[in-house]
Amino acid sequence: MTSHLALMSCLLVLLLSLDKFLLHYLKKRWLSGGSIIPRISSAPSKSRRSMAAASAKWSETAMLVIDMQKDFVDPAMGSSGLLAPGEAIVPAVAEAVAVARQRGIFIIWVVREHDPYGRDVELFRRHFYSSGKLGPAVKGSEGADMADGLIVEEGDYKLVKTRFSAFFATHLDSVLKTSGIKNLVIVGVQIPNCVRQTVYDAVALDYEKVTVITDATAAATPEIHSSNIRDMKNIGVETPTLEEWRL
Amino acid sequence: MTSHLALMSCLLVLLLSLDKFLLHYLKKRWLSGGSIIPRISSAPSKSRRSMAAASAKWSETAMLVIDMQKDFVDPAMGSSGLLAPGEAIVPAVAEAVAVARQRGIFIIWVVREHDPYGRDVELFRRHFYSSGKLGPAVKGSEGADMADGLIVEEGDYKLVKTRFSAFFATHLDSVLKTSGIKNLVIVGVQIPNCVRQTVYDAVALDYEKVTVITDATAAATPEIHSSNIRDMKNIGVETPTLEEWRL
Amino acid sequence: MTSHLALMSCLLVLLLSLDKFLLHYLKKRWLSGGSIIPRISSAPSKSRRSMAAASAKWSETAMLVIDMQKDFVDPAMGSSGLLAPGEAIVPAVAEAVAVARQRGIFIIWVVREHDPYGRDVELFRRHFYSSGKLGPAVKGSEGADMADGLIVEEGDYKLVKTRFSAFFATHLDSVLKTSGIKNLVIVGVQIPNCVRQTVYDAVALDYEKVTVITDATAAATPEIHSSNIRDMKNIGVETPTLEEWRL
Amino acid sequence: MTSHLALMSCLLVLLLSLDKFLLHYLKKRWLSGGSIIPRISSAPSKSRRSMAAASAKWSETAMLVIDMQKDFVDPAMGSSGLLAPGEAIVPAVAEAVAVARQRGIFIIWVVREHDPYGRDVELFRRHFYSSGKLGPAVKGSEGADMADGLIVEEGDYKLVKTRFSAFFATHLDSVLKTSGIKNLVIVGVQIPNCVRQTVYDAVALDYEKVTVITDATAAATPEIHSSNIRDMKNIGVETPTLEEWRL
Repeated sequence: MTSHLALMSCLLVLLLSLDKFLLHYLKKRWLSGGSIIPRISSAPSKSRRSMAAASAKWSETAMLVIDMQKDFVDPAMGSSGLLAPGEAIVPAVAEAVAVARQRGIFIIWVVREHDPYGRDVELFRRHFYSSGKLGPAVKGSEGADMADGLIVEEGDYKLVKTRFSAFFATHLDSVLKTSGIKNLVIVGVQIPNCVRQTVYDAVALDYEKVTVITDATAAATPEIHSSNIRDMKNIGVETPTLEEWRL
Repeated sequence: MTSHLALMSCLLVLLLSLDKFLLHYLKKRWLSGGSIIPRISSAPSKSRRSMAAASAKWSETAMLVIDMQKDFVDPAMGSSGLLAPGEAIVPAVAEAVAVARQRGIFIIWVVREHDPYGRDVELFRRHFYSSGKLGPAVKGSEGADMADGLIVEEGDYKLVKTRFSAFFATHLDSVLKTSGIKNLVIVGVQIPNCVRQTVYDAVALDYEKVTVITDATAAATPEIHSSNIRDMKNIGVETPTLEEWRL
Repeated sequence: MTSHLALMSCLLVLLLSLDKFLLHYLKKRWLSGGSIIPRISSAPSKSRRSMAAASAKWSETAMLVIDMQKDFVDPAMGSSGLLAPGEAIVPAVAEAVAVARQRGIFIIWVVREHDPYGRDVELFRRHFYSSGKLGPAVKGSEGADMADGLIVEEGDYKLVKTRFSAFFATHLDSVLKTSGIKNLVIVGVQIPNCVRQTVYDAVALDYEKVTVITDATAAATPEIHSSNIRDMKNIGVETPTLEEWRL
Repeated sequence: MTSHLALMSCLLVLLLSLDKFLLHYLKKRWLSGGSIIPRISSAPSKSRRSMAAASAKWSETAMLVIDMQKDFVDPAMGSSGLLAPGEAIVPAVAEAVAVARQRGIFIIWVVREHDPYGRDVELFRRHFYSSGKLGPAVKGSEGADMADGLIVEEGDYKLVKTRFSAFFATHLDSVLKTSGIKNLVIVGVQIPNCVRQTVYDAVALDYEKVTVITDATAAATPEIHSSNIRDMKNIGVETPTLEEWRL
């Protein structure tokens, strides 16, 4: 009799300790046609269990890698679009992507790809594309490729944009929302324009958690970098270093 | 010992019988700061339980009532915007709204409210607003009010649009998505323009289920009505009568 | 006396022959502070003058060719996305494009290009892309190519969309407006979905003249075609045949 | 004598045969305050000419006054949305508006007006509206009114937004573009969020000239103000003081 009560208590505690995540996870498993029973009954080893937990934890997160294209970060291209400090963050971006892959985070490579005539570029940049000049990130040109060391893999998604924000006049929000993404982690160049505009639009579009990895982003000067990080923090954006984020 | 097994089995059955809805509901309660314990421990009567199930069922649905304003459906206004067959559906729209209220469905009154100078109206309609004429649904005019018999209540939401689709250049998708709405039920005028454009945009925005109540919508002629219902059915829209929908 | 009449006749003929375009052109010159006189006084030869008039007349017009891709109009592909009557209009579309080229009209090839996993396709179509099936118009697949007989040329623009409307979550409006485009001519498939949604969005976006070439568009049945043409006419869209348009 | 009558008839016919375009042209000239006749025949005096030039110069400019509502700039409201340094710029904003009026610039009052339940507010701000608290700028509340000293006049336009940028999910771009606006002058609060996001979106939407009047805008600290002005300058935005702008 007392054993019944003990058992009841245990089960109650167990139920109450199910956090929202587990509930969400259970729901998903169930709906997707899978059965929850094998998972429970098969008693996965600790390592497999924590892997499952990890991927569940990150299944609602996407990483946006912004504008890490040769014309913007590789001085060898000699492009008018170069952001000189961009080159230095390529390894950090590559590492952030590697961590994201390990966690099962959905990786989206956001790139500019422009018309050779510049008909889809901001008015104030069109002179870079006029009369035969090769402007930055022309579709099909080498400068539009990802910087050396950054590899788009099977299962990643590549999204083309033509303005600062990755959400401006693109279907990014549609891809993310229908993939169940609620949280974003953002890396790339450059902080005051494409990164920040993407971040602010993400907040306006009600992503629950928006994270910018400070040392996997770049700006023309340290002051521009820090002042923009400050403003983003002020609207609730998280701004860890790569080391802090990978913990 | 066998009693332990019996108890275990009962609990297992119980857990497995929790449908996705209840889980979702539990999660919501939990997160919203409410306590789950009284609900579980208080053993609600069957009727209260099914009411809870009902409101859970409809908590992801919103009703959009489109353009049911005097200038569009009340001949007494003498507006150039009148759709003659609109008046006849006012009772059906009122009844659909009443059913929606009973079910706890989120009700959104989508209205046009235009500048007296017509600066926010479609180009092809601007002549209705020129040189002192009072165009349809001018903000603050009687013609912009809801038709007699339709009442915006506390807790409803009123959304102003300036084009056919309720989603065009408005924050409707934001209000709906952040309210957890996945399904839409649509009533109002007129089928080929404002209703259909809203429906098609809803499909493009990936609402899971889009329903148009056929006899709570109107068009200039029966042929226009039926041909548009046909096209919407062809992209997966549900098109019940009010009687069918209220079952 | 007769000289008065002769003068009158001349002036009458001259005025009546001014088409709206020339008027528009005059207006612009005038308002922009430039002088019209040098242009008139330099007396270009007749042929040059009419060429200039022609290209001026059409410089504010773009042609949108919608979804004329193999998976949608070529039965040989065996795609689930095929619209059977699409194949028959390929020659008319090719001819419309040829006329547009001759007139100097900006040609925009609007295409769907989808993720192999269908992550950017409408929810109600995602089953076509699940578990290894090759859905319609997958980026890089043959089915996403233009139908045989339709050639994208240097100077044309290719715009990728992921929903019905060519304007939905794309930068099409930006490309058009910054290219000075005010009028649209639309051909392609299929009338009730991608063509009509593009047309209605074009009206909502205040393009001054929107034209659908009736026999260079297709629908599943003649009734679907004619009922949609009727609805578009009712909001001011022009609906000539190819023969009428090429006059 | 008969020749006079003949001439008269001819002219009458001629006038009646003027197509809608010429009429449109005449109407525009007329409505915009200028008469077509004086311009052609009367050789206006220098002062009238420069006034006409001035209004022509500014007819393509609009002023956006952003969020100058009591809850955001008037400490007396005690709102959680207060930006303390906002109050100090009210006189400068009023003066900027007065200058704009004198120049015939189209004035647009951009305001937040929120649902009392906060269903249309950013997720990260919703706690301000929960359980009976009156959040900032609730529609119909005193806090949503313009600050004392700022008057919306007949002919101005009031635009409601629910996010930082005045362009986000609103019809502002539509109103501006169809009113022939190409240049924007922006005043109000606060620089890093609503002002900057509106400015960046204006650049993305290809307004030709975007101007921020530095001392008719405010931020929480001088550093936040200056760093954001710096970033905006870097993408081509003009940043005069009110004195410089009024010259």
